[in-house]
Amino acid sequence: MKIDHVTPKTLSRRGFLKTAGGAAAVTGLATGGIPFLPGKAEAAVTLPKKWDETYDVVVVGSGFAGLAAAIEAKNGGAANVVVLEKMPVSGGNSIINGGDFCAVGTKLQKENGVEDSPELLYKDMLRAGMYLNHPELARTIAYGCKDALEWTESYLGCQYTKLNYHGGHSVKRSHGTVNQSGSEVVKKELAKAEEIGVKIQTRTKVVRFFKDKDGRVVGLEVRKGYKFPDDNSGKTAFIKAGKAVVLGSGGFSNDVALRQIHDPRLTDKLGSTNQPGATGEALLAACLSGAMDVQMDWIQLGPWTSPDEKGFGYVPLFCEPLVGYGLMINPKTGKRFFKETGNRKERADAILLLGNPAIILGDSYAVNKQVVPHALNGGLKNGSIKKFDTLEDLAKAYDIPVEALKEQIARWNSFVEKKKDDDLDCMIFEDARPTVEAPFYAARLWPKVHHTMGGLVINKEAQVIGFDLKPVKGLYAAGEVAGGVHGAVRLGSVAMADCIVFGRIAGANAAKEKAWS
Amino acid sequence: MKIDHVTPKTLSRRGFLKTAGGAAAVTGLATGGIPFLPGKAEAAVTLPKKWDETYDVVVVGSGFAGLAAAIEAKNGGAANVVVLEKMPVSGGNSIINGGDFCAVGTKLQKENGVEDSPELLYKDMLRAGMYLNHPELARTIAYGCKDALEWTESYLGCQYTKLNYHGGHSVKRSHGTVNQSGSEVVKKELAKAEEIGVKIQTRTKVVRFFKDKDGRVVGLEVRKGYKFPDDNSGKTAFIKAGKAVVLGSGGFSNDVALRQIHDPRLTDKLGSTNQPGATGEALLAACLSGAMDVQMDWIQLGPWTSPDEKGFGYVPLFCEPLVGYGLMINPKTGKRFFKETGNRKERADAILLLGNPAIILGDSYAVNKQVVPHALNGGLKNGSIKKFDTLEDLAKAYDIPVEALKEQIARWNSFVEKKKDDDLDCMIFEDARPTVEAPFYAARLWPKVHHTMGGLVINKEAQVIGFDLKPVKGLYAAGEVAGGVHGAVRLGSVAMADCIVFGRIAGANAAKEKAWS
Repeated sequence: MKIDHVTPKTLSRRGFLKTAGGAAAVTGLATGGIPFLPGKAEAAVTLPKKWDETYDVVVVGSGFAGLAAAIEAKNGGAANVVVLEKMPVSGGNSIINGGDFCAVGTKLQKENGVEDSPELLYKDMLRAGMYLNHPELARTIAYGCKDALEWTESYLGCQYTKLNYHGGHSVKRSHGTVNQSGSEVVKKELAKAEEIGVKIQTRTKVVRFFKDKDGRVVGLEVRKGYKFPDDNSGKTAFIKAGKAVVLGSGGFSNDVALRQIHDPRLTDKLGSTNQPGATGEALLAACLSGAMDVQMDWIQLGPWTSPDEKGFGYVPLFCEPLVGYGLMINPKTGKRFFKETGNRKERADAILLLGNPAIILGDSYAVNKQVVPHALNGGLKNGSIKKFDTLEDLAKAYDIPVEALKEQIARWNSFVEKKKDDDLDCMIFEDARPTVEAPFYAARLWPKVHHTMGGLVINKEAQVIGFDLKPVKGLYAAGEVAGGVHGAVRLGSVAMADCIVFGRIAGANAAKEKAWS
Repeated sequence: MKIDHVTPKTLSRRGFLKTAGGAAAVTGLATGGIPFLPGKAEAAVTLPKKWDETYDVVVVGSGFAGLAAAIEAKNGGAANVVVLEKMPVSGGNSIINGGDFCAVGTKLQKENGVEDSPELLYKDMLRAGMYLNHPELARTIAYGCKDALEWTESYLGCQYTKLNYHGGHSVKRSHGTVNQSGSEVVKKELAKAEEIGVKIQTRTKVVRFFKDKDGRVVGLEVRKGYKFPDDNSGKTAFIKAGKAVVLGSGGFSNDVALRQIHDPRLTDKLGSTNQPGATGEALLAACLSGAMDVQMDWIQLGPWTSPDEKGFGYVPLFCEPLVGYGLMINPKTGKRFFKETGNRKERADAILLLGNPAIILGDSYAVNKQVVPHALNGGLKNGSIKKFDTLEDLAKAYDIPVEALKEQIARWNSFVEKKKDDDLDCMIFEDARPTVEAPFYAARLWPKVHHTMGGLVINKEAQVIGFDLKPVKGLYAAGEVAGGVHGAVRLGSVAMADCIVFGRIAGANAAKEKAWS
């Protein structure tokens, strides 16, 4: 950050530091505060002489969590609430979410005859999380998700029309939105926020936190008119949070430097299924202000993504239904290298270890039976899925040794005949058939970063915990920016529940804070 | 921390804060510095008016790493070097270490006809670390360990007499000290440090860091005369580091609150194999000063420890040789529950999931064949290992349903006969025999915390990296307090190599820093 750009005469950091101590008046800083800590983006501990804007509650991030927090803060009595979003449009990653909301004991579950309980979800979350989840956080979601879903229905007007299943859950409990997208919820949150008078500011990026002399977070330095990802864009402004700051700023799947510190394999050779703005500046700014991070090295990869299309794309919808029916091949050798029905982490790790993209392939029977036309046609159109009349053509296209490939497929076919994979113990489904029927379809697979489980330590009141192991006064967090909720692995569809449950808690508690002055 | 205890009239934190800004003179703080950040143990950013002691290089921790750093700092030209140790005696956890030093291409390996290479060790470290290791750090150890070992031989006079094997290594490369203890190295480091004029101060605990206006670490606030674990003991002193501070302060295996944040299963029901002082205050103080932590949730448990004796004890030396020869039972059911030859993490996780200690048992043939008399006799004497004439007596002693136990042993014996475990796929060694021969021996197993892989982010120059992703000026770290070196799992005997390699780098680089004034 270069403060020089903003107020060159009065706030030049270098100038300030040269005259630190006695020069508060000429630097435009209030006396009685604590001067800047130096260094890019370090915790700002000087209160600005003048706040440019003042709110009761300042929310960072406009996804599921941030918007839920803003709405509950406003409804909880905060006189004015702002949502800061660094990107030019609201919605964050939530707006491209698949729109499955995990909840237990709902109308839709009853209609589908599903027996379920919060305790069962809690246990599923802990098992998937390898028992690294903070139990009270997982429990808060398990017991709070029904109420959260119903709030989005009755208060926001969201509709869920299909009960879906995700791996790792004991039962079907993922409630699909009517439009199969998180946008159903985000758009209705945005409409409600506007209706009740929450202000939304896009292109506003957090630079650092202000704390008062008691260690309470009292405001933010931001860049207004920020153009992602140009750090020099926009103008500095100081925003006062009279009651609290709530972080709902999301994960860091697209922050290559940060994710490589926590998992060095995740270089820029790996894309992400997330929106470009899923970078960790607000999280790091909070840590520089004393907030503690946890389980940052649990970064979930999708093993079903293609390097030949951007973001989530079509290939995951081609690959996943094919496992147990088709083969995954290393093109260098023409051989299978890992069981196709392994879990996300196992498969992604195995492909990364190859060092080159894998190939998933299936014949006409398998593809037509398993893959929805929308996904197949989308992938064929953008070139990420290819169609071949012969195995020779397929081998040639991906530079696979053709004889080795044919031998491997013959071996696979023998396993399919007896429904038992002697080589890699892949599950082979009862209705699977040998891979023989032209045309053949194939796609390249290379993992993409999908979700960052780690983040700021919070308690069940959504208060952020500091490196002194105590709550950071005036600071809350919810959603992907918070860690410890999911432990090692987040189950599919629990993200929405997490965001709405903890977003609402954070907002309600922020509104209850006593205002400082 | 209560500054009130120390200088009640002038440095009372509350009093200071009430008059913050204009009151620097009366608080005893120099003007021109940056006043205290508030909150227990937060980063101190005010320079004290007067330093009580001044050194070029201040080392925190007196184990392998800290002492190596101190020696190299002194030899590298630091005029005066101090080592601060919070416990009453020097040596930290290193002095109770088993004394195996991983190194590649040594005389002892050649004498034993072992073919090895740094690259092979590097690959072993990465595989064990689940590829979470920072590659340049693992590489630095793999290529630097031979030199480090030879430095302890030629410069310190240490002796290594036996080449040992640890799981996960491709070859034998663990060099056992002559006395089978890390004390061989620590004691010789201490003697050398004293000889060359390094000062060692015990009972001196770090409270927080001082940074100057450029963000450089320039000194520490400590408690002298500290009596572990009483935070109110001792007196505050301000120690200036003219060149740098080196952290060699070890892990946090005994810091229950901190380890539970990163792995909630590790409650106070779990002991530790470490010395009591393996608590994370210096690490947290560094984080409050802007240093970044990494992979803190990878905390290694020993699955072979007993709740019936303190620390490492005798039971690991009873349990480990018995796996593949004897059975591990859940006393609640009388049944086996996990393969005895599973890896450390698998077995520890399985026992924790039981929720109660497991029982390892073997008959006279297995125990006499496999367990060294020293361990057996030690365990029998302290009561952690018990001897029974009949299985009935054994079942009664541990409250195991006796018929279920007998049935399970019969089943196990049938597996031993055919050398194949149909239930849990345990390896059964060729010379294993059915468990039939009285007397029988048994011990309870409950995991203990053994090593904390995570810690501060460092680069290969041992500089600590901050939450702004840049080196924290004037701050180095080495050994268990640093993270990212071992990734998910530290291999046996690589701790000594890590500590000596990075301790020396940190000390040498600290000495090269330009002094501030």
